[in-house]
Amino acid sequence: MNVLCMSIQKNLEIINHHQKEIILLNQIGGLLGWDQQTYMPPEASIGRAEQEAFVSSLVHKKMIADEFFNAVIALQKEKLDARTTRLVTKLHKDLSKSRKLPLTFVEELSKTTSLAFDAWQEARKKQDFTIFKPHLEKIVTLKQKQATYISPSSVSYDMLIDDFEEGMTVAKLEPLFEQLKEGLLEILTNIEKSKLYKNQKEILLQKSFPKNDQIYFCEDVFRRIGLSTDSSRIDFAQHPFETSLGFNDIRITTNIRNSPLFSFFSTVHEAGHALYELDLSEKKIYDFLQNAPSYGLHESQSRFWELFIAKNKFFWQYYFPLFKRKFKLSGTRQDWYREIHFIAPSLIRIESDEVHYCMHIILRFEIEKGLLDGSIRVADLPKIWNEKMKKYLGIVPKNDAEGVLQDVHWSSGSFGYFPSYALGTLYAAQLYSALQKQIPSIEKDIVRGDFIGIQKWLKEKVHAFGAFFTADDLIKKVTGEGLNPSVFLNHLREKYGKLYGF
Amino acid sequence: MNVLCMSIQKNLEIINHHQKEIILLNQIGGLLGWDQQTYMPPEASIGRAEQEAFVSSLVHKKMIADEFFNAVIALQKEKLDARTTRLVTKLHKDLSKSRKLPLTFVEELSKTTSLAFDAWQEARKKQDFTIFKPHLEKIVTLKQKQATYISPSSVSYDMLIDDFEEGMTVAKLEPLFEQLKEGLLEILTNIEKSKLYKNQKEILLQKSFPKNDQIYFCEDVFRRIGLSTDSSRIDFAQHPFETSLGFNDIRITTNIRNSPLFSFFSTVHEAGHALYELDLSEKKIYDFLQNAPSYGLHESQSRFWELFIAKNKFFWQYYFPLFKRKFKLSGTRQDWYREIHFIAPSLIRIESDEVHYCMHIILRFEIEKGLLDGSIRVADLPKIWNEKMKKYLGIVPKNDAEGVLQDVHWSSGSFGYFPSYALGTLYAAQLYSALQKQIPSIEKDIVRGDFIGIQKWLKEKVHAFGAFFTADDLIKKVTGEGLNPSVFLNHLREKYGKLYGF
Repeated sequence: MNVLCMSIQKNLEIINHHQKEIILLNQIGGLLGWDQQTYMPPEASIGRAEQEAFVSSLVHKKMIADEFFNAVIALQKEKLDARTTRLVTKLHKDLSKSRKLPLTFVEELSKTTSLAFDAWQEARKKQDFTIFKPHLEKIVTLKQKQATYISPSSVSYDMLIDDFEEGMTVAKLEPLFEQLKEGLLEILTNIEKSKLYKNQKEILLQKSFPKNDQIYFCEDVFRRIGLSTDSSRIDFAQHPFETSLGFNDIRITTNIRNSPLFSFFSTVHEAGHALYELDLSEKKIYDFLQNAPSYGLHESQSRFWELFIAKNKFFWQYYFPLFKRKFKLSGTRQDWYREIHFIAPSLIRIESDEVHYCMHIILRFEIEKGLLDGSIRVADLPKIWNEKMKKYLGIVPKNDAEGVLQDVHWSSGSFGYFPSYALGTLYAAQLYSALQKQIPSIEKDIVRGDFIGIQKWLKEKVHAFGAFFTADDLIKKVTGEGLNPSVFLNHLREKYGKLYGF
Repeated sequence: MNVLCMSIQKNLEIINHHQKEIILLNQIGGLLGWDQQTYMPPEASIGRAEQEAFVSSLVHKKMIADEFFNAVIALQKEKLDARTTRLVTKLHKDLSKSRKLPLTFVEELSKTTSLAFDAWQEARKKQDFTIFKPHLEKIVTLKQKQATYISPSSVSYDMLIDDFEEGMTVAKLEPLFEQLKEGLLEILTNIEKSKLYKNQKEILLQKSFPKNDQIYFCEDVFRRIGLSTDSSRIDFAQHPFETSLGFNDIRITTNIRNSPLFSFFSTVHEAGHALYELDLSEKKIYDFLQNAPSYGLHESQSRFWELFIAKNKFFWQYYFPLFKRKFKLSGTRQDWYREIHFIAPSLIRIESDEVHYCMHIILRFEIEKGLLDGSIRVADLPKIWNEKMKKYLGIVPKNDAEGVLQDVHWSSGSFGYFPSYALGTLYAAQLYSALQKQIPSIEKDIVRGDFIGIQKWLKEKVHAFGAFFTADDLIKKVTGEGLNPSVFLNHLREKYGKLYGF
């Protein structure tokens, strides 16, 4: 720091104190949420909703504290080191946004979404959208209100997307998603025309995979990727997720299905998030830059491990013999590799293959846009969902549980989150391509089940910076170019061209 | 309410608002603690300590808020209904106490105890008191300081006991514990003189009891006693405990050992606490009277179920055939009943038989008194512990883990808590004696494994009042007399007189 006068010091102390309290509250909120989805008795929901709303209101009160904002304003006028300058800029933006939301609104939103989560669970169980409908209507209205509070003259959806992807807008996403949609359709058409596609039939995956053996591999890959039960753990929840509850306290969940691919790949996916969080928490600093710059960049870490490591042919040189032994598989590694890459439209996003995956996101993006601008009514959602599924994926859900009710996000009011999944996928492709160029020998490590070099590279190139750079700048810094969907499309063309022979 | 003017209404709203926030924070603190003892990864301790200290400081800030205290003061001058009057009196006492503790002190205590908990765990694992010693020294100093803040002229230990047992003092406990000690020694002498004692040998309990079958009975008795997994759950922790995390969210833990008696009776014990909490939370009122009047009275509920129901001969008419079948036991119900009542001094309090149990408490009471008044130094604890064990129980621990390190309480700064265990035991005896008189047919229910009548009786006579009465007044109301150790001593004389033939 160049000028270290008393007033700077005092203001830095103020912003550090407030950041720490907010981060502690967010960690506590994280525990309330983790417990709700893992161990909480079902009838505890109403009380838990009160607790969550209360914590949200405390966070909000601290975010809008005048003392905090005034210190930020004062620091903005000072000459500070680069990191502090960036921190102050970020704080100014975040606090200004929060200061526009009335406390009563924040409390109402938190309580509404906590109850909506339970309604969503029940609706899904009973395959009945009408149970969730009034909750979702209330949430949509509240989210429109939120966007208006922040900027009455802007596109509502932009204001929400910005919470997840700083600076991203509908106007930027639309052409990007058009390019992606076109590329994916072309690849899908090639796949669907191929002989292999017409004759593809699961053989190796059509057997029973005992639960305990699935858990064995989840724990094994979790450890190999670089996580330890000293500082993280795996539990079971309806929806796999990762959450960071404090320094050295990273939790992921998975879900055991018939096929081991779901638990295995979802564990790898969430472990990718977890590694990021573990590295971010390493310095034990309570500040807003010890964070991913965007949800998309966070997602790039999970998708990196899931799509580019765990679906890598070299990865299965290591893991196939172990799977073969444990599950008594009869086929070859090549058979297995082919089967785990079978392309087939899936009704469920999180079970989707990597070619169809972004189609699920684009569908949700279009629906969210419509809900926010009022061109789509909540009541019509099941119908619209099914129409879009037919159009983009060629299949239609038999019920709402496998259709419009499948994702947890809307129940928590997370409108604007879905685009990050696609962005994360695109970033992941760019990162893997950069890794291959920068460390050409990396594939030899993967063959040996050795991921230490990859962990180190990600830590050094991505995790270490926290939110110092924006997602786009960070990607530019690592890969030499900004967001570019063609890297992912090329990856798919090359990989599936070989697999399906086109 | 007689006078319902605007100002009363306003002040009631203020006290309700503050009470609700404090209770929500305590529930959240409860979750942080529950998770720490059940699922939290070990290396997360430092971060968790910060979270817990932060929540404690928030509670403390709310407890000392002037607005809250002023509303209480204002309400004290008004004519209110009996319940509100009692609530206001209780609030005045609790808030006055808190207002004497500086915030920095509260934060330091919370952080110290959170770290001490981990040190205690490690010390216990390594059987090495010196690991825990510096932490305990710090805690003792802090607790002395706490007592001095509250009342510099009073006996320090009294000020701490009062947190658990309103109005109880060393001066009252000493003669009570003398009477108890004498009675217990007389009974123990009679037992030890008996032929049966000299020849007693476990046969039925000397076999292996599979973990899953033990869990089966824990879950079964949990359900039968009146708990449901819809609103409560059992987990595993080093030390069994019960904690209430919100309305319809009561958690207990147990621990599986070789003998099924530990998991079974500890589950019954904690389930007794849980039933109390469940009834207290039924009205979904966030106020300080929806609480037990004292820890001793809370403990009376767990001891009631553990000692007077689950060790009742009628209880085993129902459960023995089930145990016999599941565990393939070869003996008779009478053999089993005798074995589970074998009297033998135990090094570990929570594994103690009911005759020796209060000796463990009296030992701790004397040590706490000495630590607080400075006549005992922390460094001498292992030595003093062992001397007292020799004197009161006739046995000496081989290491500190089974000696001075066995209890969690001191690591959490809970000095003054132990006497409540003895008081709870004495109250439980009085309650069961009253139940027998009031519902003479209750034993027929127990034979059938039907505990609904007992649940209802406890709810109506004890739980329904919350903290409206003091513990002593409530016991008087239910049983016709105040605290009276001779009821428990008579119970022991009669039961063990029959079992050991004296």
